[in-house]
Amino acid sequence: MSVTPAQTNQLKTTKTQVKRVPKRGHYDFEVVAKILDEGLVCHVGFAIDGQPFVIPTAYGRVDDNLYIHGASASRMLKSLRSGIDVCLTVTLLDGLVLARSAYHHSMNYRSVVLFGKAHEVTDTHEKTAALRAFTEHVIPGRWDQVRAPNQTELATTLVLSLPISEASAKIRTGPPIDDPADYGLPVWAGVLPLTQMSGLPIADTRLADSLAVPLAVPDNVRNYSVSHLARRQIFQ
Amino acid sequence: MSVTPAQTNQLKTTKTQVKRVPKRGHYDFEVVAKILDEGLVCHVGFAIDGQPFVIPTAYGRVDDNLYIHGASASRMLKSLRSGIDVCLTVTLLDGLVLARSAYHHSMNYRSVVLFGKAHEVTDTHEKTAALRAFTEHVIPGRWDQVRAPNQTELATTLVLSLPISEASAKIRTGPPIDDPADYGLPVWAGVLPLTQMSGLPIADTRLADSLAVPLAVPDNVRNYSVSHLARRQIFQ
Repeated sequence: MSVTPAQTNQLKTTKTQVKRVPKRGHYDFEVVAKILDEGLVCHVGFAIDGQPFVIPTAYGRVDDNLYIHGASASRMLKSLRSGIDVCLTVTLLDGLVLARSAYHHSMNYRSVVLFGKAHEVTDTHEKTAALRAFTEHVIPGRWDQVRAPNQTELATTLVLSLPISEASAKIRTGPPIDDPADYGLPVWAGVLPLTQMSGLPIADTRLADSLAVPLAVPDNVRNYSVSHLARRQIFQ
Repeated sequence: MSVTPAQTNQLKTTKTQVKRVPKRGHYDFEVVAKILDEGLVCHVGFAIDGQPFVIPTAYGRVDDNLYIHGASASRMLKSLRSGIDVCLTVTLLDGLVLARSAYHHSMNYRSVVLFGKAHEVTDTHEKTAALRAFTEHVIPGRWDQVRAPNQTELATTLVLSLPISEASAKIRTGPPIDDPADYGLPVWAGVLPLTQMSGLPIADTRLADSLAVPLAVPDNVRNYSVSHLARRQIFQ
C-alpha cells in the first residue's frame, strides 16, 4: 500500500468503524502509524475454538507492516502463523479526566485497533529488517550498538507480519465534559496528565569495569526520556 | 471465593498455565490482585463468529470480582453480556531490558491474563459498589468528592462482572540475561526503568473562580504520583 498525505480514511472498513463516540474515530494511516510508533507493548487477540486470548507483546513497524515475534515454540505465534484472524491493539494513556460527577469521569488516550491475518516471515532479508525494527522501536540507535542475531537465533525466532490496512485510531483529548447543571457544583475538575517516564539507567552488574561508569551509558539510553517525549505531541 | 494467604496457585488451570518461561508464571490471588489494582486500563478480548476484538477500557475491582462498564449501547458490552468467553489482560511496563545482543533484548513487566464469562450486574447495590470502584480505582477518595450517579445514569450504564477465579500473572524483573560468550563484548547493558508519572493537574477552564486556584486542587489529585508510586513495589 502506498500512502500519500492526500489519502484519508484509507483504513476504514465496516469492522474498524468506531461506533461509540464516532467523532473520536480516525482512519488515516499517518495517525495510526504515529500511535503505533509511540507505544511499546501491543495486546494481540486471537480465538481458538471460540476462546479468546489477549497476550501483551513487543512489536515493530516497517512502512505499512507491523511485526511481532517470539520463540518458535510460542503457543500464540504457532496459532497465529496458521493464518487465523487477529486483532492487535495499542493504547497510550495520556491523562485522567476528573469530572464533577462520577458518571463523566473518563481518560484521555490514543488507541489503535488493527485487524488482519498474521503471516510468517520467511524471507531472510525481511526477517532481519523486522528484527532491526523491534530493537530500534525500543530505543533508536540500539541495533548498531549490539551484537546482531546469528543464524541460530534467526532460525529459532518466529516473526509474523500483519499488514496495516484495516485499522482505526480512537483519541480522546481535552477537559471533562460535565452536565450543564453540574458546572456550578463546588467540585474541582480537570485533567491529570499521565506519561511514561524513564528513570536513571541501571547498569548490569556484570559490565566490564570500563563500561561500569556513568559516561559509558550510550547517549540514546541516557537521553531516552527526552527523545521519547520529543516524539510526542502533547495530548491533554 | 474466600482467599487466605495459605492458599497458593488457586487461580491456576490448564488454560492459565504459563507455557513460555514457566518460572515467570504466578497464580496467587494476591499477586494477581496487586497488578490489577495498579493498572488503569485493561484490554478486553472476545470473539464473535471467530473474529477477535481487543478493546481497551477502564475497570475496577471489588474483592474477587473485576468490573467493566460502559454505555448500554456499547457493542462490546452487548456482546459480553450475552455470556461469551472473555480474556481480560492488564499489563504494567516496568523497564526496557537492554542486552548485549539484539536477540536478548526484553522488557520488565507485570501482566495478568484473566479468563471467564462476564455477567451483567443488575442488583442496584452491587452496581453502585462497582461504580464506586471505578472512580476509586482511578484516584482513591474521588467518589466522595463528586456528584454520585443519579437514577438515569445508573440505568444507562451497563456494568459487567467477571470473577477473578481463572487467571495468571507473568512477571519479568532483573537485568538482561546474555549468552555467556557475549558478556565480554564492549556493549553497555542494563535496564532503563519505566514508570507512569503524572504531570501538574490542569484545571478545567470552567471552574468557578474560587476553585481555579492551586490550593483548590484536592490532595488526592495533587499527590497522585506520590501515592500511586507508594502503592508500588519497585520491580526492575
